[in-house]
Amino acid sequence: MSSASVAVVIHAAKDLRLENRDVRDLGQDEVLIALRVGGICGSDLHYYNHGGFGAIKLLQPMVLGHEVAGEIVEFGSSVQGLNLGQLVAVSPSRPCQACYYCLNGQQNHCLDMKFYGSAMPFPHIQGAFRSKLVAKASQCVPADGLSPAQAAMAEPLAVCLHAVKQAGSLVGKTVLITGCGPIGCLTTLVARRSGAARIVATDISDQTLAIARECGADDVINTYTDPQMLERFEKDKGQIDVQLECSGAQSALASGVACLRPRGTLVQLGLGGDMTVPMQALIAKEIALRGSFRFHSEFAVAVEMMRSGLLNVDHLVTHSFEVGEAVTAFEVASDRSRSMKVQLTFPDNNNG
Amino acid sequence: MSSASVAVVIHAAKDLRLENRDVRDLGQDEVLIALRVGGICGSDLHYYNHGGFGAIKLLQPMVLGHEVAGEIVEFGSSVQGLNLGQLVAVSPSRPCQACYYCLNGQQNHCLDMKFYGSAMPFPHIQGAFRSKLVAKASQCVPADGLSPAQAAMAEPLAVCLHAVKQAGSLVGKTVLITGCGPIGCLTTLVARRSGAARIVATDISDQTLAIARECGADDVINTYTDPQMLERFEKDKGQIDVQLECSGAQSALASGVACLRPRGTLVQLGLGGDMTVPMQALIAKEIALRGSFRFHSEFAVAVEMMRSGLLNVDHLVTHSFEVGEAVTAFEVASDRSRSMKVQLTFPDNNNG
Amino acid sequence: MSSASVAVVIHAAKDLRLENRDVRDLGQDEVLIALRVGGICGSDLHYYNHGGFGAIKLLQPMVLGHEVAGEIVEFGSSVQGLNLGQLVAVSPSRPCQACYYCLNGQQNHCLDMKFYGSAMPFPHIQGAFRSKLVAKASQCVPADGLSPAQAAMAEPLAVCLHAVKQAGSLVGKTVLITGCGPIGCLTTLVARRSGAARIVATDISDQTLAIARECGADDVINTYTDPQMLERFEKDKGQIDVQLECSGAQSALASGVACLRPRGTLVQLGLGGDMTVPMQALIAKEIALRGSFRFHSEFAVAVEMMRSGLLNVDHLVTHSFEVGEAVTAFEVASDRSRSMKVQLTFPDNNNG
Amino acid sequence: MSSASVAVVIHAAKDLRLENRDVRDLGQDEVLIALRVGGICGSDLHYYNHGGFGAIKLLQPMVLGHEVAGEIVEFGSSVQGLNLGQLVAVSPSRPCQACYYCLNGQQNHCLDMKFYGSAMPFPHIQGAFRSKLVAKASQCVPADGLSPAQAAMAEPLAVCLHAVKQAGSLVGKTVLITGCGPIGCLTTLVARRSGAARIVATDISDQTLAIARECGADDVINTYTDPQMLERFEKDKGQIDVQLECSGAQSALASGVACLRPRGTLVQLGLGGDMTVPMQALIAKEIALRGSFRFHSEFAVAVEMMRSGLLNVDHLVTHSFEVGEAVTAFEVASDRSRSMKVQLTFPDNNNG
Repeated sequence: MSSASVAVVIHAAKDLRLENRDVRDLGQDEVLIALRVGGICGSDLHYYNHGGFGAIKLLQPMVLGHEVAGEIVEFGSSVQGLNLGQLVAVSPSRPCQACYYCLNGQQNHCLDMKFYGSAMPFPHIQGAFRSKLVAKASQCVPADGLSPAQAAMAEPLAVCLHAVKQAGSLVGKTVLITGCGPIGCLTTLVARRSGAARIVATDISDQTLAIARECGADDVINTYTDPQMLERFEKDKGQIDVQLECSGAQSALASGVACLRPRGTLVQLGLGGDMTVPMQALIAKEIALRGSFRFHSEFAVAVEMMRSGLLNVDHLVTHSFEVGEAVTAFEVASDRSRSMKVQLTFPDNNNG
Repeated sequence: MSSASVAVVIHAAKDLRLENRDVRDLGQDEVLIALRVGGICGSDLHYYNHGGFGAIKLLQPMVLGHEVAGEIVEFGSSVQGLNLGQLVAVSPSRPCQACYYCLNGQQNHCLDMKFYGSAMPFPHIQGAFRSKLVAKASQCVPADGLSPAQAAMAEPLAVCLHAVKQAGSLVGKTVLITGCGPIGCLTTLVARRSGAARIVATDISDQTLAIARECGADDVINTYTDPQMLERFEKDKGQIDVQLECSGAQSALASGVACLRPRGTLVQLGLGGDMTVPMQALIAKEIALRGSFRFHSEFAVAVEMMRSGLLNVDHLVTHSFEVGEAVTAFEVASDRSRSMKVQLTFPDNNNG
Repeated sequence: MSSASVAVVIHAAKDLRLENRDVRDLGQDEVLIALRVGGICGSDLHYYNHGGFGAIKLLQPMVLGHEVAGEIVEFGSSVQGLNLGQLVAVSPSRPCQACYYCLNGQQNHCLDMKFYGSAMPFPHIQGAFRSKLVAKASQCVPADGLSPAQAAMAEPLAVCLHAVKQAGSLVGKTVLITGCGPIGCLTTLVARRSGAARIVATDISDQTLAIARECGADDVINTYTDPQMLERFEKDKGQIDVQLECSGAQSALASGVACLRPRGTLVQLGLGGDMTVPMQALIAKEIALRGSFRFHSEFAVAVEMMRSGLLNVDHLVTHSFEVGEAVTAFEVASDRSRSMKVQLTFPDNNNG
Repeated sequence: MSSASVAVVIHAAKDLRLENRDVRDLGQDEVLIALRVGGICGSDLHYYNHGGFGAIKLLQPMVLGHEVAGEIVEFGSSVQGLNLGQLVAVSPSRPCQACYYCLNGQQNHCLDMKFYGSAMPFPHIQGAFRSKLVAKASQCVPADGLSPAQAAMAEPLAVCLHAVKQAGSLVGKTVLITGCGPIGCLTTLVARRSGAARIVATDISDQTLAIARECGADDVINTYTDPQMLERFEKDKGQIDVQLECSGAQSALASGVACLRPRGTLVQLGLGGDMTVPMQALIAKEIALRGSFRFHSEFAVAVEMMRSGLLNVDHLVTHSFEVGEAVTAFEVASDRSRSMKVQLTFPDNNNG
């Protein structure tokens, strides 16, 4: 078996390196994956640009990455149901399956979660941007029929499926989506597929709003250039049934509360730090504000719904770079005016 | 204004007549509608073939029909927001808006409901198959951009939207739809739009299953010719998350209970009389069996979602007859092997 | 019938006057009530001490009061089901029963609400602290068997019943109640009756905590003298299933978020102005923060549950003053260290 | 360690024997329990009187019993948090904690459940009526302060807590409980504690109704002697919000459906075989019929709520017999006109 892998390692803000990492032996329920594509996520960018976010600081070198897909090149002895050469989407979520929350069907709240590429615990959980990746077979979802680029979108798509489910049924509802980066656009895609009758999307960039429209938004509003356009939804205490807040911006939250109907639902999935909430209005309108965090069963659902053509993520991938150009890729990904989702590709001959 | 209207009147089983009816003066909040299209529903067929159903018997002549669309030809003095000549879908649901249930947002349970073409109360509530129809403006939903045939599908589509909402969020779920007549097919259409990841549809006719597939079913099973095909979904206590039972057949209910996962949901909207339920299995699997009946706010949503292209009902209308051929139309509609949805058309020059 | 009534009128901060008001003629669905007891609420105190709260300012003299009970002394011609001399609790909630929200079962969000003693609209809605009160029969709930003091607790009790219902079933749950003024103590009473297995109550006053304990709290914590006592509930991501936040204090909200389990529920009913929320934790733990505002059907339920002995509010009324001593009553009520609920009594011979 | 235990073994209908059974060695996470009390359940009686129920037949001798409490007399090496001599309630529910349902927080639907005293699987799962019982420490809930008789009520009480939770919040609701055997009476107790405003209980025995009243029912109706008394709740489509059906009788289900309000909830926990359901009414009223089966986390909650005095089961235990009189005990328990809950006691010196 090959013994080395190229990994994308962050050492400190703006200090991103390609390094060789040994590939450990397979356990019997594990597989070896030749990575094909890895998508760069907002949290990867925070480590790259700032060495962390909020209270979470990088304390040791860490392999980045948790949006990955690749081909199976070797099996452990007990693995079933997967084929050599098969494309799989690899879930970065590795709950313990034994704690109180795992045994309560709430694996995203596992007390001992090992989520790829996270500096929350110490030692940090190493990520998945490596040309050869050892993973549990249970993390792998067959992605036959998808491109590696599509398969690598399963993770952010799962985040959005999970968030939309927090809002309850959207059938026939008017939905506001604030913030149209990759998560906002994927949320638009999911909300459109989930029966929303009307979708209003806001952002401060016309480029991202154009992609939101391709993802299914009926109305798009640039709240930087047209700050008053959202106000018409404030009529009669509010016209919006559900807000899916993907920006993490205090102003987006506040404008949504003003537009939500009494008893409306606001799902907050944009991470933007602690913030002031218009609590008087939230109480008087009896709004339900729910946090949404990561996913569990939705990862396999994301792959399944892409495979059956129910969700098409192709509008979102704007750039692709070979892993050797990782620093360029991170720079492009950091510029929201230029890019939506940026992915790294790993060459076929990746023996490190 | 013209003073007479042609109406489709049922007198007894197999005794359907075209009769002139006077057109009463408009109230100030009413409009006069020149009917364009009326769809024949299963309950119309019960009156035509059997003179009623279950405990409900025809006790006096009754105008049939409650799936109608037409053009506005005259206004009452206080009507706003509608235009002369505008195509509207007309809701047959006329709740009192003052009883306990209306003031609880449950208008479909109104204690004084006047639903078009129903022999439940006596005197019966006269229906809407008449060339000139007086209705409240509040019953009329603008249908610009739709054909009259599409607009006349708003009513059965509203029934299905209401039923799907009873199941809660379908996002990512495996859904079984039993019975693929017009209601089953429209339910398939709505479930597909509502985020179901996989839809299995069953019927005993290959023709109806073909339409169900066009409406979005992933798997179709003819339970008459392939009675065992559904059994694979019984594995591990059940693989189906939600059953939408549209047949009213006891066997369809029973097979669904066997396939539903523990804690699954079964929405019963097919009216087939009282029946034996596999209660032991329902209890042991903690299945939730919910009835679904008619609709309220979903009528306007149905029109809106057809207009925006989110729900396309064109697969369902298989036959159309001029009102003069109403008896033929009812005969064709009574033969499930020949037809799905049969509609009557009312000629433009309908001055009776 | 007598034509004058003594009313408790606020003119400006600290300017509270007793004034005569004419008693208007009864409509046919109205009754004349000889007021017996009126409880002083937090909002009454805001008008008295500050002339308003937040954006709401007193712009004209306003009769205060919305927690009232009295005896029926005269009927309109169409009133049924009430007796002369009968004690009734009078609901201050007067929704229009015709707007979108009323017809959706959400009367507390009525677009044209006339809630007693509120300066939110202009002209202000005059309140119910008057010796003779004309009210709709539909506002009156028979309170036979209760004392007038108990009956006058129906309104704040209804607020708490409504709030507890927003949390879903409490059966077997661990509940945190922050802020033990009248609303916090009544919420404790309701939570205890609603199946909570364990109730933890916090405040910064030992006197109020003593009453909370009488209302059913298992654990009481003075967060001023024992600021660290709540921290033990932060273990393993949180031990609290439901927080009922009655203080309106930012610190109470924040400490609750730290103690709530992932997927826990936080009902905010304490009005304390807009505030900073620990949004990172709320998202990562997927907490649902729901506002709760006023009530509707819960008013009659509150009376019914007091009458059947299921809820006993006697622990809460600490002071009672004749209406002639209204200023003293408002001063005592403003001092949380001395009083819990302070009520005004109206003498039997109240002909003004 | 003692090596033998007296067990209550069913061989066939009416063939109940006391037999010695070896006590196996403790695993490190297990405890040895000297049984004090075992309650006789309806399923025990079915095995005793009929050799099974429905499709479930006794195929080999089986130790009966699953409602048990006893004192800890020995520990495995890794057990923590329990004391020698401590009274514990022992949960009969032993899910695998690894299957799809266990990892979804639905342990009562475990694909490999080992529930005490069940002939559903073969070999049968042996029960807990044995003087010395080896159990996992995780099955044991400390019952300090309770009597053994009370502690042995934890299991049926857990069944009822689980069932009441299926109805959602009962706060302020009118609840109908049909069938007042032990499960019906405990359900009454739980519904009363869970905030129901009014409880109507029905049975065909005045003795059981008398106990239901002690458990908190406001109205009791003998449907055998007063068959029409329930009809007044049919007014205006129904006056009952929630029915908790504990009898398993088709007539009780049907009468409940007639009394339930539109959109009411019917929780079926009485096991009475498959049955005819008034489906037309269930659909037209959009009733939700939910099965409830066993419990999981509710077992510990049941003990906790008895310990804190929130639920008092003393009204229910009508008879107690030493294990040597087991046959008499089963005969008395089989006669509903004589007994409610019958328990077996196990003498202190139970070395077999």
